[in-house]
Amino acid sequence: MDIIVLKPDTSEYDVRHILKKLESKGLKATVSSGTERTIIGVIGDTSKVTEEEEDAIRAMTGVENVVRILKPYKLASREFKKEDTEIDVKGNVIGGKKIHVIAGPCAVENKTIMMHIAEEVKRAGATFLRGGAYKPRTSPYSFQGLGEEGLKYLSAAREKTGLPIVTEIMDPRDLDVITKYADVIQIGARNMQNFRLLLEVGKVDKPVLLKRGLSATIKEWLMSAEYIMSQGNQKVMLCERGIRTFETATRNTLDLSAVPVLKRLTHLPVVVDPSHGVGKWDLVAPMAKAAVAVGADALIIEVHTNPAEALSDGEQSLKPDLFMKLMKELAPVAEAVGREI
Amino acid sequence: MDIIVLKPDTSEYDVRHILKKLESKGLKATVSSGTERTIIGVIGDTSKVTEEEEDAIRAMTGVENVVRILKPYKLASREFKKEDTEIDVKGNVIGGKKIHVIAGPCAVENKTIMMHIAEEVKRAGATFLRGGAYKPRTSPYSFQGLGEEGLKYLSAAREKTGLPIVTEIMDPRDLDVITKYADVIQIGARNMQNFRLLLEVGKVDKPVLLKRGLSATIKEWLMSAEYIMSQGNQKVMLCERGIRTFETATRNTLDLSAVPVLKRLTHLPVVVDPSHGVGKWDLVAPMAKAAVAVGADALIIEVHTNPAEALSDGEQSLKPDLFMKLMKELAPVAEAVGREI
Amino acid sequence: MDIIVLKPDTSEYDVRHILKKLESKGLKATVSSGTERTIIGVIGDTSKVTEEEEDAIRAMTGVENVVRILKPYKLASREFKKEDTEIDVKGNVIGGKKIHVIAGPCAVENKTIMMHIAEEVKRAGATFLRGGAYKPRTSPYSFQGLGEEGLKYLSAAREKTGLPIVTEIMDPRDLDVITKYADVIQIGARNMQNFRLLLEVGKVDKPVLLKRGLSATIKEWLMSAEYIMSQGNQKVMLCERGIRTFETATRNTLDLSAVPVLKRLTHLPVVVDPSHGVGKWDLVAPMAKAAVAVGADALIIEVHTNPAEALSDGEQSLKPDLFMKLMKELAPVAEAVGREI
Amino acid sequence: MDIIVLKPDTSEYDVRHILKKLESKGLKATVSSGTERTIIGVIGDTSKVTEEEEDAIRAMTGVENVVRILKPYKLASREFKKEDTEIDVKGNVIGGKKIHVIAGPCAVENKTIMMHIAEEVKRAGATFLRGGAYKPRTSPYSFQGLGEEGLKYLSAAREKTGLPIVTEIMDPRDLDVITKYADVIQIGARNMQNFRLLLEVGKVDKPVLLKRGLSATIKEWLMSAEYIMSQGNQKVMLCERGIRTFETATRNTLDLSAVPVLKRLTHLPVVVDPSHGVGKWDLVAPMAKAAVAVGADALIIEVHTNPAEALSDGEQSLKPDLFMKLMKELAPVAEAVGREI
Repeated sequence: MDIIVLKPDTSEYDVRHILKKLESKGLKATVSSGTERTIIGVIGDTSKVTEEEEDAIRAMTGVENVVRILKPYKLASREFKKEDTEIDVKGNVIGGKKIHVIAGPCAVENKTIMMHIAEEVKRAGATFLRGGAYKPRTSPYSFQGLGEEGLKYLSAAREKTGLPIVTEIMDPRDLDVITKYADVIQIGARNMQNFRLLLEVGKVDKPVLLKRGLSATIKEWLMSAEYIMSQGNQKVMLCERGIRTFETATRNTLDLSAVPVLKRLTHLPVVVDPSHGVGKWDLVAPMAKAAVAVGADALIIEVHTNPAEALSDGEQSLKPDLFMKLMKELAPVAEAVGREI
Repeated sequence: MDIIVLKPDTSEYDVRHILKKLESKGLKATVSSGTERTIIGVIGDTSKVTEEEEDAIRAMTGVENVVRILKPYKLASREFKKEDTEIDVKGNVIGGKKIHVIAGPCAVENKTIMMHIAEEVKRAGATFLRGGAYKPRTSPYSFQGLGEEGLKYLSAAREKTGLPIVTEIMDPRDLDVITKYADVIQIGARNMQNFRLLLEVGKVDKPVLLKRGLSATIKEWLMSAEYIMSQGNQKVMLCERGIRTFETATRNTLDLSAVPVLKRLTHLPVVVDPSHGVGKWDLVAPMAKAAVAVGADALIIEVHTNPAEALSDGEQSLKPDLFMKLMKELAPVAEAVGREI
Repeated sequence: MDIIVLKPDTSEYDVRHILKKLESKGLKATVSSGTERTIIGVIGDTSKVTEEEEDAIRAMTGVENVVRILKPYKLASREFKKEDTEIDVKGNVIGGKKIHVIAGPCAVENKTIMMHIAEEVKRAGATFLRGGAYKPRTSPYSFQGLGEEGLKYLSAAREKTGLPIVTEIMDPRDLDVITKYADVIQIGARNMQNFRLLLEVGKVDKPVLLKRGLSATIKEWLMSAEYIMSQGNQKVMLCERGIRTFETATRNTLDLSAVPVLKRLTHLPVVVDPSHGVGKWDLVAPMAKAAVAVGADALIIEVHTNPAEALSDGEQSLKPDLFMKLMKELAPVAEAVGREI
Repeated sequence: MDIIVLKPDTSEYDVRHILKKLESKGLKATVSSGTERTIIGVIGDTSKVTEEEEDAIRAMTGVENVVRILKPYKLASREFKKEDTEIDVKGNVIGGKKIHVIAGPCAVENKTIMMHIAEEVKRAGATFLRGGAYKPRTSPYSFQGLGEEGLKYLSAAREKTGLPIVTEIMDPRDLDVITKYADVIQIGARNMQNFRLLLEVGKVDKPVLLKRGLSATIKEWLMSAEYIMSQGNQKVMLCERGIRTFETATRNTLDLSAVPVLKRLTHLPVVVDPSHGVGKWDLVAPMAKAAVAVGADALIIEVHTNPAEALSDGEQSLKPDLFMKLMKELAPVAEAVGREI
């Protein structure tokens, strides 16, 4: 059900014109005239009314505003599916009582470092391994990732440690090679509205970790999840990684309130990435604890054995000893909110 | 020490002009010419260089940019005072191991309700009482607070419960009446840069709770604390209450990363207000837990016995039973991060 | 008329409870049940429903959302008064065909400079003189203005040039001294929601130039105008001066679309301040032309005879020769849009 | 040249460690010790220092901050190429004295409408035709464009009117089909940081219209232009189309100050899209005039013969008669700023 608010001085003729238009779309309408405004209540399944149809109504003579009552996403909504979605990745269930920690370097750099980091994060208690083989960089002159070579190193690290792999896709043309190696496919913040890419990952049978865009509203983010789900793939997890604000003391502003908001709006698991959210390694630990306390189902944390030599995002990476310390500190916080880690 | 970056094609003449200007301010300078830019390093105590002098240098011919190295606040900085500031309010120390909870209604409405809420929050474990007698409202037609009448009710509630009072000042002309009743004077978000008001509360011997402005950077916020401290009053606590972003699912975006950032930059205690931060009562509990986990020294939480009849901010108020439940849930989180509540 | 959207599973009991509440406020309501949601249309003069009552309804069991149809401001609205408001300041009419230019230094510094600048801007065609005697500065260590001394210099400059004076008020306690000298009282961006100050300037018979807050929505800005007008003073002009965004290349982001938006929503004149909006003198001229083209009724432009020695905002001030050049360039743009300057 | 600011208490050992690191990158450094901070000036061609190396230095012990002096883009910079770039599209030169107007529907809907609109915009004086065959939509249930069929209709409209075509690419896999038909390839706001797509359009010999991302800084935008140019394609025009802010009265906030800022930083032509910038047809005309006054080299304006039936963005489309009226009104504004249209 939608509501159309009319301008104060709309003519009878224009009202009838609007009603006819609604009728032509198979929608019923009731007109209520108040002392100051007339509104039209649109009855019927308005979820089929597309954005463009809504815009078109907004453009009609006499229309002051159209208020959408129903949410524009369906499969992703809590109303559509009441129970929490649990995503099982090789026995690791994301969305249940256990909070998972996905750790590793920003970018896969070489085999030795990758293996070393993998063993360190495994030892500290991480249950997933992350690492980018295809890297979105703001500069064309920056390291763009090792490509399939990097995926092979990740794969070797998985073999050694047993940790499932989370890695990013940037281009629909890489889908085959990435699905060959990855356990979870990551869609980065800059690609949250790369709709073609969303459609493609919607067609494969792999869990997708969908990061929030830098200035995406929660509604838009859920619409991007809906894109993936509309193609059949229901295994989507949402990852808050900070939004862009005027504040410059941190790289982004990690919006932790997105976690409880999402828990109300959707059944999908929610992940938090404090490393990208704040962009400074010494702020990662307190924000990771807050993310656990607020109800995150998983965390992504950047770990590097030598941040000062990292080929990407060294500034926000934890050294293994600090990561291990953090893992120990997270356990009682998880327990305090009825979870385990 | 500051740095002046020159434009690529700056003449010798202009460089000498800039150096003379610096000299006239009692500052020494060293010129370093690189392959692509010449920079001037300014030596000496540049903390005395005011904003306007910096702007003036920026306006000189040949200057591309001025990079400020030193922080513009001093008394508020961690460099100036290494140890955490603890503020003792009638035996309740904010800034120490114990996390305090300041609870109560948004506005003082009448004596009966005020007494009732005070007793309820006391029973649940709150250690301070809040309530506004002078209310900043976006509409001139909204309830503006009871004024001194409201302060008397707060005072009566303090007498009954022993809880110290936190209440807001909006106008320098109210300073006398507010200091007469309040234990902590609150400066609201909209007055964070009401500089005259800051100067006035800087002259009294009462702790000040300084809320962050809706779009204030952390640096500007600390400058406002510096305003107060520059007048002699060192008892300032900073309260994060959400910043304005593009997101509309929450009233504001509660920037919890501000807590660890502040802990590095300043020695002042940090308070978090999840009620205003999110603006919806059902999101307050998870955000309050996150605030404790991230390192807040105190929380402010709105509690009302009948939110649906509240004269202000009913939407974000907890009922006493939910507040009591929350207090019980906060205790293990506090313990998990080495604090108590 | 407002609309209350109910949650999908709201009970009959809760619906009746909401209807009773509305009835108790003297409001009628109609319930419409769609296939997916039930909504309650509230009939009657809902403009009397205050924010707090709306919040309270939002807090009731079963309520998903309250959609406000009517605007919360009245006196400031175009619906209330259809014709453009013209404000006559000593024969200079702001809001008519002629576009006025208010020029002068950011701060009044001394008599000689003030007189000099006044003569220069007069010569170039400015019709108002600006200058701050009370300056809001982010640092307590910056120049805070000359106070009444500065107002006297402004007054002397007015006597010499005939230009009416625009100057800022920061504190209700300065109202008497400022009304004694000023022709137009300016409320700065940081005080847009200093509600006590708004109420005070609403009681005097002087035009008020109300600057938009750094992160104020247009609606909030109009509510602040309403504050002033609710006290009797209808001579309010609105000044766009840039809003805070993530962009750092300019000091603020000058929101020129606010001009045509305001022209639709309100009858009040609209002023644009390109100097504060961009913060760099070499961007002022193009933005001033754009402001004229978009429909501004007046411009405020900072002019200083020696920006590199200015005590405030030197970076964004034009020298008199550049200002004169700009005035000449603005004339054909004004003519192109059917105005004069 | 870059500057490294050290923490107050950095040891000699750490300083040496940093200097060694710089040396290993082939960079020279000078250490300057002030009374409050020590800084290291990095000499040599630091433009080769990548983001990741900068981050890595930031992560070293003792480093408080790294201040980048040089701009991270080169080919796009005004320093690299002083003269304005003019892009010739079939005899229409964008970036010269003449301001071009690119007009047409948001999406290509069918052949009849496309031909009709093309003739109308041609008649009114537009010099380019726009229309999307591949549409980025926030909902998977919205109209996604006609694909190659749409390109054929555009092509037919070009044949009839002689207007060159601007159309959007969303996916690297569509490059062949789009280059076959388009005269100018558009990269939409959501794809501004789709780096793979940027690399691909950088390899073809077609002008690219690069829209600014919803929350992209001007620096990031120029880095995206640099991505394209780094592959050989120097024909890039930048299109401001509004950024995301907290304001909801307009769809976006059109940042017109970006035009003069870009004119200083880059030699590339600048286009403004007032239709997307404000999102409401009745605000398009004033913003288009402002865009011309501020110095835009071209405008993109949505025109539709029947906005209320448009399949996309009907709300912001002008009808042909209003578009013709606007074209007539733009001419004197262009002339007033020394341009023609």
